[in-house]
Amino acid sequence: MPKVNLSQINTRAPKNLKKENAKAKLLKLQTKIEELQNVLYAEGKHSLLVILQGMDASGKDGAIKKVFGAVNPAGCKVFSFKKPTEIEMKHDFLWRLHQVVPEKGMIHIFNRSHYEDVLIQRVHKWIDETVVKQRFEHINAFEKLLEQSGTTVLKFYLHISPEEQLERLNERLTDPTKNWKYNQQDFEERKLWNNYMNAYEDVFENCDKVAWNIIPSDQNWYKELLIAEKIVATLESLKMAYPKVENSNLPQAAGAKSVKKK
Amino acid sequence: MPKVNLSQINTRAPKNLKKENAKAKLLKLQTKIEELQNVLYAEGKHSLLVILQGMDASGKDGAIKKVFGAVNPAGCKVFSFKKPTEIEMKHDFLWRLHQVVPEKGMIHIFNRSHYEDVLIQRVHKWIDETVVKQRFEHINAFEKLLEQSGTTVLKFYLHISPEEQLERLNERLTDPTKNWKYNQQDFEERKLWNNYMNAYEDVFENCDKVAWNIIPSDQNWYKELLIAEKIVATLESLKMAYPKVENSNLPQAAGAKSVKKK
Repeated sequence: MPKVNLSQINTRAPKNLKKENAKAKLLKLQTKIEELQNVLYAEGKHSLLVILQGMDASGKDGAIKKVFGAVNPAGCKVFSFKKPTEIEMKHDFLWRLHQVVPEKGMIHIFNRSHYEDVLIQRVHKWIDETVVKQRFEHINAFEKLLEQSGTTVLKFYLHISPEEQLERLNERLTDPTKNWKYNQQDFEERKLWNNYMNAYEDVFENCDKVAWNIIPSDQNWYKELLIAEKIVATLESLKMAYPKVENSNLPQAAGAKSVKKK
Repeated sequence: MPKVNLSQINTRAPKNLKKENAKAKLLKLQTKIEELQNVLYAEGKHSLLVILQGMDASGKDGAIKKVFGAVNPAGCKVFSFKKPTEIEMKHDFLWRLHQVVPEKGMIHIFNRSHYEDVLIQRVHKWIDETVVKQRFEHINAFEKLLEQSGTTVLKFYLHISPEEQLERLNERLTDPTKNWKYNQQDFEERKLWNNYMNAYEDVFENCDKVAWNIIPSDQNWYKELLIAEKIVATLESLKMAYPKVENSNLPQAAGAKSVKKK
């Protein structure tokens, strides 16, 4: 996609959109997702990989909870990618992710992903620009491999403003139910905001074989609505159906004509 | 690489090569491989992936036993890829292989590999030609990813004649110690010999970002010698060294000057 300028993209919902209306819509979409996941599982022909990226406190965890909260956990798994372990570091950067891509019938959600390997690693200059370019290519090949193998890849960037982030980070200090999320390092990373935005803009430009969805995320209700809408539209486009039992395999129902009393 | 014609490539050793000499050489190479694997493991900077392909009875198992027989099994693992399992079939074709690529410090040997997905699957027309082309690309990207991540990929094709294969398959019927390897299906596959040769020639032409080594394999001693030579040359080219302990971390040896008797 052409270079985007994130600072020009709104982080908030359009003024005329009512929160209550959005919340009512979301409820219906949640039910829809629950239904669609059932068919996906039963049919076993497709799989869905949802990738969530965004700055600290952009609301990735919340999005998962709200959008997929009603889905049968047997058919939907979440994987969070944090700092690579020692054993992960001894392999190529896609190794740990490839292991947990969804099999046919499943929805997998990646909370952060292989994109961290061209974001945090690049911003901190842990890798040089040659490696960045190589990784862009490998990411494109990897996502193409998945798509050609029956996996639909849906990528979301949760777009928040630095002001909103600051408010949320501070809340983690003051709200006892959010204290556990507090991390002094987040305030350090914040200083690199512009570097991160540049790195994200480069990702959108270079890793666009599978489209990115940039989601205004300063208001959670709007973020959740947009993600849920996209998920539903994507699953519906797969034209899935419950498999039918072959007629010849069906035992005749009790009471059917051929069942005779002796 | 330019298109090869396998029927024009010798399956036997040059006439002037003496079997006894080759065997003596192999013994030295085995010891060399053992030593090099130790350094590979200790240094932990590189890994080696050996891929063995070849027709039934081309001697893949024997090659592993002879060439790597002396290697410390803690640093060397063999993975055999047979018919994909049900769960493997629900993923992309590289999924099962990527999981078991070698971490830094290790040698992994693939007995058959992702190439089966463009060989047996193609010969039997289980996939169409579009998929074959896509898979060639994905294989190239995959091997490049490994190479760029510190893994040296060594690919061997064990080249035997159809006459030698027939003799070996028959031996499996008559030799009680080889009966367990007998499989009627091998005789069926044999009928597709030319189709397999064409498919292999296409693989060599299209998946050549990492070079193929075509090994004349009608005589096991010659096959083993060539493979061992290549392994040694490859490991030596990595210029590995045992890591040294930093001087400052060394406890002073007993008897050193600063140890004073009270």
